[in-house]
Amino acid sequence: MNLSEFQSQLKPNGLDAYIVTRNNMFLGQDILQEENKIEALTGFSGSAGTLLAFTDKAYLFVDGRYTLQAAQEVDTNAVTVITTNGESLATWMQNNLQESFKIAYNPWCHSISEVDYWNRALKKHFFIEDTQNLLGPLLSSQEAEIFEHDIEFCGVSMDEKLSLLTDFINKNELEAYFITDCDAVSWLTNLRSHCLPDTPIIRAFALVDRNGEVSLFTNDFNKIEAELAAYQGKTIGVAYNHTPRKLQILMKNHKIWLENLANPIQNWKAIKNPVEIQGIKRAHHRDAIAMVKFLAWFDKNWQGQDELSVAEKLHEFRAKGENFFSNSFETIAGFASNGAIVHYRPQAKTNKKLETKSVLLIDSGAQYYDGTTDITRTIAVGSPIPQEMIDSFTQVLKAHIALASAYFPLGTPGGALDSLARAQLWQFGKVYNHGTGHGVGCFSNVHEGPQSISSRSSAAPLQENMINSIEPGYYKEGHYGIRIENLVRIIKAPQSDFETPMLKFEPLTLVPIDKRLINKYLLNKRETGWLNDYHHLVYESLADDLDKEHQNWLKEACSPL
Amino acid sequence: MNLSEFQSQLKPNGLDAYIVTRNNMFLGQDILQEENKIEALTGFSGSAGTLLAFTDKAYLFVDGRYTLQAAQEVDTNAVTVITTNGESLATWMQNNLQESFKIAYNPWCHSISEVDYWNRALKKHFFIEDTQNLLGPLLSSQEAEIFEHDIEFCGVSMDEKLSLLTDFINKNELEAYFITDCDAVSWLTNLRSHCLPDTPIIRAFALVDRNGEVSLFTNDFNKIEAELAAYQGKTIGVAYNHTPRKLQILMKNHKIWLENLANPIQNWKAIKNPVEIQGIKRAHHRDAIAMVKFLAWFDKNWQGQDELSVAEKLHEFRAKGENFFSNSFETIAGFASNGAIVHYRPQAKTNKKLETKSVLLIDSGAQYYDGTTDITRTIAVGSPIPQEMIDSFTQVLKAHIALASAYFPLGTPGGALDSLARAQLWQFGKVYNHGTGHGVGCFSNVHEGPQSISSRSSAAPLQENMINSIEPGYYKEGHYGIRIENLVRIIKAPQSDFETPMLKFEPLTLVPIDKRLINKYLLNKRETGWLNDYHHLVYESLADDLDKEHQNWLKEACSPL
Repeated sequence: MNLSEFQSQLKPNGLDAYIVTRNNMFLGQDILQEENKIEALTGFSGSAGTLLAFTDKAYLFVDGRYTLQAAQEVDTNAVTVITTNGESLATWMQNNLQESFKIAYNPWCHSISEVDYWNRALKKHFFIEDTQNLLGPLLSSQEAEIFEHDIEFCGVSMDEKLSLLTDFINKNELEAYFITDCDAVSWLTNLRSHCLPDTPIIRAFALVDRNGEVSLFTNDFNKIEAELAAYQGKTIGVAYNHTPRKLQILMKNHKIWLENLANPIQNWKAIKNPVEIQGIKRAHHRDAIAMVKFLAWFDKNWQGQDELSVAEKLHEFRAKGENFFSNSFETIAGFASNGAIVHYRPQAKTNKKLETKSVLLIDSGAQYYDGTTDITRTIAVGSPIPQEMIDSFTQVLKAHIALASAYFPLGTPGGALDSLARAQLWQFGKVYNHGTGHGVGCFSNVHEGPQSISSRSSAAPLQENMINSIEPGYYKEGHYGIRIENLVRIIKAPQSDFETPMLKFEPLTLVPIDKRLINKYLLNKRETGWLNDYHHLVYESLADDLDKEHQNWLKEACSPL
Repeated sequence: MNLSEFQSQLKPNGLDAYIVTRNNMFLGQDILQEENKIEALTGFSGSAGTLLAFTDKAYLFVDGRYTLQAAQEVDTNAVTVITTNGESLATWMQNNLQESFKIAYNPWCHSISEVDYWNRALKKHFFIEDTQNLLGPLLSSQEAEIFEHDIEFCGVSMDEKLSLLTDFINKNELEAYFITDCDAVSWLTNLRSHCLPDTPIIRAFALVDRNGEVSLFTNDFNKIEAELAAYQGKTIGVAYNHTPRKLQILMKNHKIWLENLANPIQNWKAIKNPVEIQGIKRAHHRDAIAMVKFLAWFDKNWQGQDELSVAEKLHEFRAKGENFFSNSFETIAGFASNGAIVHYRPQAKTNKKLETKSVLLIDSGAQYYDGTTDITRTIAVGSPIPQEMIDSFTQVLKAHIALASAYFPLGTPGGALDSLARAQLWQFGKVYNHGTGHGVGCFSNVHEGPQSISSRSSAAPLQENMINSIEPGYYKEGHYGIRIENLVRIIKAPQSDFETPMLKFEPLTLVPIDKRLINKYLLNKRETGWLNDYHHLVYESLADDLDKEHQNWLKEACSPL
């Protein structure tokens, strides 16, 4: 069905408009490309966006990352692209829709909170559940094999995890809790699958009762209603901001009480257990060996390569590693001006050949059975590199170090640390328009909550043994992009003389930072010390597992500044 | 009426409990001591607290600053002191009151938002308006003289300010806006008074209609109802979080529609006009001269002095200055261990005599007709000062400099900058439990919104020509306290080569920072540079207005590190 066919179905169904989201019922977790209703209707392939379709016009709402891409991908005669600078769809509707409209939405694809908000903020309009599934099935095949994440990797049995949850259920006097986050379901059950290309989670809901009975729903969602029938008059906990409106409707139909409770698994999952920590360290060691081999290869062989070929080469090095499962996301390899597009992914038609005197930004990672990696390095291609690029790289490095070397008290939310990195670039009149760091799963989502380091909604406290990225950047449109990303583990600061206990970051990523791009006169003593210590750690950690040639390459790459 | 007399009145009035607040109807603006119902009932004199009185018991809720003081001041047999660590009264009631109670409150003293929140979160209880004023009149005399703030100081006429507000009223399709912040009323009307000891605002509500007609309510609040009668069926704008519940009741009785709209004056007022900026700079120059004379006098004469006598001496120096009106708050002069009590005010029974080898924290300021000042200096008393105090002072200085020298993009909320200061102390395992900076009025409140630099609710963006304090500190309980506070003006960064326009801070406070307390080996080149530049500016700004002796003192105090 194309857009105009879809639009022609609105009036016959008594509708003025339809809110089309990229979500399936898993609300914001990864989707398969063939499930992307927005791409199907408009051609827009970005990872975030909402379409508001009327009979005779349509608006595509995207954030600043996707303004250019959306304009290129959609037919702008049929679709008006609107960049939302933090403004919500509801606010836009409030300011721009004068008349009263009947607006449909799929109740599986929007959270209870979102629909409540529309109804509260936009009293003028009528929000109508699409019960006919006008856009067709939400999920493509769910047939992918499901397998167990071995206890030697996940560290804690499902029974033990379940007992945490039943304690929570009983403490809150619930009959059950309905888990709607696939990554939480995967963590709880220690199940994984091949369903999504880069994320080994299973796609499922789970209803867990106070005795620890688990009902998993993976594809036949009609079963949900049958299960719920048994809960009449009882209370089930759900997180309103991540539970499809449809489940609320089903529960209300069965006279079930809902209690809005944040999913406690998000925090349990984010704090890695000792087995996971050991696995994650081994995975990062393995990943670093692959990265070092790639970087050494790159230095010798970049001529004649392009973005796609180097991404493939890096994949080859990684795929040889023990416990390798898949990449953890589609590799970003952006050369020169492509590096300035924050959400760039090389494709045949954009693929740049590498040339001398610029930089390649390469952001990549892997899913190993024992851990998930995510690393960005920006590397010199040929020489001489323009001084301005070197200065920018050094400024981004200062931002990385400022955060990576910070101490902070227990209970500090990630958001409070965001400006420590940004301030280093602000002093040079520079900004970057993305978060500074995100939580990372263990053989799970490469982006996971609840914590993050960003200027928006980063209220969750950073806690010991959470894994987070640190990834400030700088992007000069039309010229080049720079990002330096390590994953770090949050640990207790070892200083016994601290009167207030502090947390700090321990680097997990162990890969040299390109010294050819550093202007050492921009670094102060403390920053130079951090870099030299980091490189010392990298060399000591990896050298024994490398052959002589790679050892020599690494020795040079890690020599003191 | 004492506490037990008050408690005995509950049952006869059909009540189980009463929520007593320190607020009068101006909700959180300064009160006169004789208006403090909590002090009258319990003896607790702190600047924040809530009392929940039952017939046979009472709970006093205070924040961490006041735990010790409350325990000293109240009869703990009659009153249980509870420290709320950010927890709201409502949350405490939810967790601790099992039965259902009838709880009274004075509807003049609680905002619409607060009462709405109780009713929503605590459905079990009944919140009952005290219509009999069981605790007696809220305001003591309002007879103080009201005078006009001259246009040569305030810079913009009332007519011009009113036209901003009527534009706002008309744009929002209101009939009128009800202003419930006294500082906003004072700003709008250019009126001031002698009512409060340290803050020259008038205490009044103002109802402004869409034609710019202003009704001021200063003491006879019965007039409000008469005025409101004319608005039946019309819409009046109010800020729910700062409007007494009582006004909502009155409006509803008259069938007036309320629209919840934040008071726009708060932001207009915070952005100082050019006349105010000039006045504020002159006031700070004058204040600095007084501070320098005080500091020079102190160095020679501290022996035999005590906290109260030096506070009085400083007041004498200030009071000689042109346009001096009053202090801007009660001076904090805390020697040695008293300096570690963040909200300390010297009193006869706590007054410490100054002795050698420790530090005096002195936080003070003045209301001048052309500007309001607020400065904290921590100064060496005698010698040698223990190295640990010197190191702590230097660490606080690093925190001050990190923020004072920061650049930040337009739109940055104050909260985002808070950790720039704190992180400097975190690296030494130290924290301080107060905000890093607050907005400052012009011949008005020394603490004003909407902006602040703090870890809590600092979402308002910092804008050009706002005035803010920067005041990190460190407090070693039982030993000493350190704080270094300057007021700063927010200005555009002058760098023309910045690709993103930035804001920065310009110091208004021009008083040397005690070099005898600095360990220069803890400062990096950039920090030393900042200090030397600041001291150079101080000397150049003040020297011409000092006699030879003070010039010499200042020259030494400002010589490069």
